[in-house]
Amino acid sequence: MKEQEDQTVDEQKEPNQYSRREMLKMSLLTGAGVAISMSGIGALTSMTNVFGETVKKSGSSSEKDIISFYGKHQAGIVTPQQTYTYLAAFDFTTSSKGDVIRLLKQWTLLAESMSQGKADHKYSNDWLPPKDTGEALDLPPSRLTLTFGFGPSFFSKKGIDRFGVKRKSPKHLKDIPLMPRDNLQEPFIGGDFCVQACAEDQQVAFHAIRNFIKSAVGKAEVRWMQSGFISAKHGKTPRNLFGFKDGTANADPKDSKAHEQIIWAGDEEPAWMNGGSYMAFRKIKMFLEVWDRSSLKDQEDTFGRKKESGAPYGKINEHDKVNPIQMPPDSHTAIAKRTGQQIYRRAYSYTDGVDPKTGYVDAGLLFISYQKNPAEQFIPMLKKMSKADKLNEYTQHIGSAMFAMPRGIKKGEYIGQPLFDSF
Amino acid sequence: MKEQEDQTVDEQKEPNQYSRREMLKMSLLTGAGVAISMSGIGALTSMTNVFGETVKKSGSSSEKDIISFYGKHQAGIVTPQQTYTYLAAFDFTTSSKGDVIRLLKQWTLLAESMSQGKADHKYSNDWLPPKDTGEALDLPPSRLTLTFGFGPSFFSKKGIDRFGVKRKSPKHLKDIPLMPRDNLQEPFIGGDFCVQACAEDQQVAFHAIRNFIKSAVGKAEVRWMQSGFISAKHGKTPRNLFGFKDGTANADPKDSKAHEQIIWAGDEEPAWMNGGSYMAFRKIKMFLEVWDRSSLKDQEDTFGRKKESGAPYGKINEHDKVNPIQMPPDSHTAIAKRTGQQIYRRAYSYTDGVDPKTGYVDAGLLFISYQKNPAEQFIPMLKKMSKADKLNEYTQHIGSAMFAMPRGIKKGEYIGQPLFDSF
Repeated sequence: MKEQEDQTVDEQKEPNQYSRREMLKMSLLTGAGVAISMSGIGALTSMTNVFGETVKKSGSSSEKDIISFYGKHQAGIVTPQQTYTYLAAFDFTTSSKGDVIRLLKQWTLLAESMSQGKADHKYSNDWLPPKDTGEALDLPPSRLTLTFGFGPSFFSKKGIDRFGVKRKSPKHLKDIPLMPRDNLQEPFIGGDFCVQACAEDQQVAFHAIRNFIKSAVGKAEVRWMQSGFISAKHGKTPRNLFGFKDGTANADPKDSKAHEQIIWAGDEEPAWMNGGSYMAFRKIKMFLEVWDRSSLKDQEDTFGRKKESGAPYGKINEHDKVNPIQMPPDSHTAIAKRTGQQIYRRAYSYTDGVDPKTGYVDAGLLFISYQKNPAEQFIPMLKKMSKADKLNEYTQHIGSAMFAMPRGIKKGEYIGQPLFDSF
Repeated sequence: MKEQEDQTVDEQKEPNQYSRREMLKMSLLTGAGVAISMSGIGALTSMTNVFGETVKKSGSSSEKDIISFYGKHQAGIVTPQQTYTYLAAFDFTTSSKGDVIRLLKQWTLLAESMSQGKADHKYSNDWLPPKDTGEALDLPPSRLTLTFGFGPSFFSKKGIDRFGVKRKSPKHLKDIPLMPRDNLQEPFIGGDFCVQACAEDQQVAFHAIRNFIKSAVGKAEVRWMQSGFISAKHGKTPRNLFGFKDGTANADPKDSKAHEQIIWAGDEEPAWMNGGSYMAFRKIKMFLEVWDRSSLKDQEDTFGRKKESGAPYGKINEHDKVNPIQMPPDSHTAIAKRTGQQIYRRAYSYTDGVDPKTGYVDAGLLFISYQKNPAEQFIPMLKKMSKADKLNEYTQHIGSAMFAMPRGIKKGEYIGQPLFDSF
């Protein structure tokens, strides 16, 4: 994520947050939608910081705490990156298009209410399982976003048009071809459908995925699920587990012109993908112990950037223009730059305990990037990196998937609806 | 953790946080210790909330953000529970007492500086590996605590007094006996030494454990490592992944008299344990899918408490007095209450992706409790629960360990020093 120079302190977490319960109560009392009824509540118009500067507080924390589920594009893509994620892939166990639509409708309702910090906690009948699993009952919305996509196997599996939508296949949706150094490990390969849950609170993100899994019984099952985290304060670029800033080259989250060029698919795609994007996922194991024993020079030569500042070789500041001639030709930054392509990164770190085979920490990067045309943007970059990137000495790709993420959802629609509507 | 009625909003995260880098700079400029130099910086004396109430802000956020590493007792035990944890067990690979002491000294220095959000980021020599791994460089201290303990195998392994301290063994340190339903799985059994890192930020907690692992090379290696999370706002009791409040029965974090009775060992122990405690650890798998299909009545009967409010059966509020006669005799709360014993819980939830054997979510509870006498407090409770707890239908214990946590560390001492000092 590019440094957001325009981010002010009012983007940070506020002490005056309202719990799901309190918001639900207020919403019932006022009879108005929660997001609207919360406007202004908790707002501080201004405060003075230690340097004597007046810091404007432009909105309420609760308003900031809710990311709208609806819009031209799906939330969770150019949304400033939240601290925690659960990424999950599902496989449909049903062969009925009606079942798929019913589940997508159910997931839409869940996603809408959970992004507002609401959940169906009516315990009217003791003899039935509770509708919601309950672990997020007292928690604020925490900027939860839920972002959805369809994998290649959704449209065609063993040559079969499973749900009658093959004719509406997205233009560039293919499994990522196997790279020479890949060591992909089941179950982290592909999937019919993906859900990316991101929030400022791990429990809120997990709660969302879990309730998706719960509601899918009989129609779909979870194929893989992976939690991840980043951390960066004051709009700084987060650091990955090699201690380097990750996402410096990203377009600014507010630069919608750049987003059109890099992220959002246009009318070259079927209507349901116009305004959508492709998510490339790679689970990349990072050999932390090996890295930690390598010299600072080796580390910086590997990235082509200074560790502390993030500046490219030959420059002073993180966002200074990259000149590949000024850095080792096999450095990560030089190779990425030389492809002449741009992607939009939204990566998270992961840890999976200790690897029983090596005794080393099992950790790495959930590489997630969004692009409008993976065939032109992501795949050529991956191919070049797979061959020549100096970073390969310290990493191994162990998971891989590609998903077509539909355009944003309009109120009253369900996820991916224009894919299923007859035409 | 008991509801902290006295917790005010100033306990929450503040926007005016200072990064490690900024604090280091300020500390260099003023020539004073960071913790001291930060006093008052960022402080707002008061602000008005939406209800027109004046909310007192008693200290600076940065001050609140640092938990002192020193004290009569170790931090991270009665410290109000942070949101994230990494719990790790180490085995010593050295047989030299001198090596152990050198490592404990190194870990002490690391723990002291990391709890203040400082790290040794001098990149003076490019040809050496950086001292710190760097991923927390820009992050605030985030209430990081590091809590240490020795396992039974540290004092005696296969009958050998490995480090010449067997005569100073703690009175009650023994491996937890195998329970009839246990399904313990390597590597989550025991360990020579444990480190509990807790923080409001997962990356900060991981960074701490990782730098402990890094500095241990040649002397100790990590046996197991597990991340965990909870979430509770406004001083509420956190909910576990069954959606029930977890830790209601705990003594108030400020009730030092209760802590003396329940948590802190006294002069019945060798001096290094006087003011220390015992940590009982159980990794408890929770069958979420089974639970989610059971009725609300079954769920509440299992705990003997109402799900939403946390109130014990027959009562109204969470903290109302438990009367075991008013709830099913095999309910979790009834059985715990009938033991007549108290422990101090500090549990976290965990998720480990999808279990490849069952296709179910692999998740549960990192049960962590502190007590002064596990033989009287924890073990009898565990035995009774292992036999009769209705919760056993939905859970399985898959990891187990017990550690003796030394008394707090004085400035200038190293972790566990009085254990090694000659007498």
